Amino acid sequence: MIDNDRRNLLLCALLAPLASNVLPASAADTPMPEHRMPDMGPEMDKVQWMGNEEIAMLVYPGMTVMDLVGPHCMFGSLMGAKIHIVAKSLDPVTSDAGLTVVPNATFDTCPRDLTVLFTPGGTDGTLAAASDSATLTFMADRGARAKYVTSVCSGSLILGAAGLLKGYKATSHWSCRAALAGFGAIPTEARVVRDRNRVTGAGVTAGLDFGLAMVAELRDRIYAECTQLMSEYDPHPPFDAGSMKTAPPLVKSAMIELVADFSKKAEALAGMTKI
Amino acid sequence: MIDNDRRNLLLCALLAPLASNVLPASAADTPMPEHRMPDMGPEMDKVQWMGNEEIAMLVYPGMTVMDLVGPHCMFGSLMGAKIHIVAKSLDPVTSDAGLTVVPNATFDTCPRDLTVLFTPGGTDGTLAAASDSATLTFMADRGARAKYVTSVCSGSLILGAAGLLKGYKATSHWSCRAALAGFGAIPTEARVVRDRNRVTGAGVTAGLDFGLAMVAELRDRIYAECTQLMSEYDPHPPFDAGSMKTAPPLVKSAMIELVADFSKKAEALAGMTKI
Repeated sequence: MIDNDRRNLLLCALLAPLASNVLPASAADTPMPEHRMPDMGPEMDKVQWMGNEEIAMLVYPGMTVMDLVGPHCMFGSLMGAKIHIVAKSLDPVTSDAGLTVVPNATFDTCPRDLTVLFTPGGTDGTLAAASDSATLTFMADRGARAKYVTSVCSGSLILGAAGLLKGYKATSHWSCRAALAGFGAIPTEARVVRDRNRVTGAGVTAGLDFGLAMVAELRDRIYAECTQLMSEYDPHPPFDAGSMKTAPPLVKSAMIELVADFSKKAEALAGMTKI
Repeated sequence: MIDNDRRNLLLCALLAPLASNVLPASAADTPMPEHRMPDMGPEMDKVQWMGNEEIAMLVYPGMTVMDLVGPHCMFGSLMGAKIHIVAKSLDPVTSDAGLTVVPNATFDTCPRDLTVLFTPGGTDGTLAAASDSATLTFMADRGARAKYVTSVCSGSLILGAAGLLKGYKATSHWSCRAALAGFGAIPTEARVVRDRNRVTGAGVTAGLDFGLAMVAELRDRIYAECTQLMSEYDPHPPFDAGSMKTAPPLVKSAMIELVADFSKKAEALAGMTKI
């Protein structure tokens, strides 16, 4: 009966964000007699509802905050996991579009052994982070032992600069995917690319697909499906311009031109060209 | 020639986040001889590249931060727009899943006349915000004059509680859409619902679709397509469980049960039932 109650309790607490009214994260041992779930059957019993992942998400000035929050939205559903928002210091960090977030860990206080090491991308801020020795030392150190080494968007430039992508297939934002070759990676065009324990997502919004894939990897497909329903991830983009394959030619050429300078700088960072 | 240079300059600055390397937001009058765009032709000339929207995004403890950041990701591309992250005070605000953001405006300092008034959703935090008189007074005041009154996810409960949805079609997260009727709204099942100047998005990740639709509304379809390509919004969810229509029955019943308490509280808030 205790086991059964415990399973019911866990299921109640599933998906912390939308379930925060049901069970506070810190109250995992509190009895919740009012919110027992019915017996969901053997398929649900197999799911690993509770875990203890240590997830570190790098933040830095000029990052694209959506690169961070897409995966965070999915990771946030992992009962028992700890999410560390890691920066050089605990000072607030402002994104490229001006939203400011507050880290809760530093390079010193972040756990040494991680389940997931993650970095978001950006443009100038990302190039700066990928050229910063303290950041690269941190990423190389944690990346050497992390169970999964991951990124979304141009965050893979930081992984590459930290020496974490040598010989691995990886992706990035379309504007700088080619530059990954300069770090010894194999640039690969896909929404989410996995090669052994490296998992990289394409540009910005790919963090949602990346995050869901990681939830399934860390727990179970059913867990990921629960997370998907709670985040109502049933996308219906009003236009069909989200990839280089579908965007109207005029939009494509304008945007390629717009980021040409960043694309060049990314290749220079990777040692492929000089500016 | 000056007009032409100005257009080129604006196009260069398009989509601030990924273009932050090209043109700092504050440097709109600085000549950028190295980054002139080629003449993109009459179709691009018609687009309103520069604007002056005043966009206020409410934040409050316990909000779902993805509800905020999805739209922010799209609004962030609007050259010339100002985005106000508004709260009761400038104290950092922690989301339901534990990510902390810093407001840059208060109910007092937020501009009185807004182009867009927006609120994210959540669960307990949203019910608290929708019961807080200072929050409701602020929303009702700005909402009375805003060009667009908008929300994502259960944020529509706050619009409803502020009296802003009476007689309007609106949507919400699936767990509390029915409760909107208690506020005199017409609950409507769609990813993004527009009724006159009320624009509401469905749960959590619908903020991306909502945000793109708003960019097209505020500027132009081509502008939105540029934003979509830059944010690589070409979703490929690894599973098909994002809506009540597609989720496996077991997942659906578990999640309905999980949020049953929140659903009841939302209906009580709307005066439909008593707890």
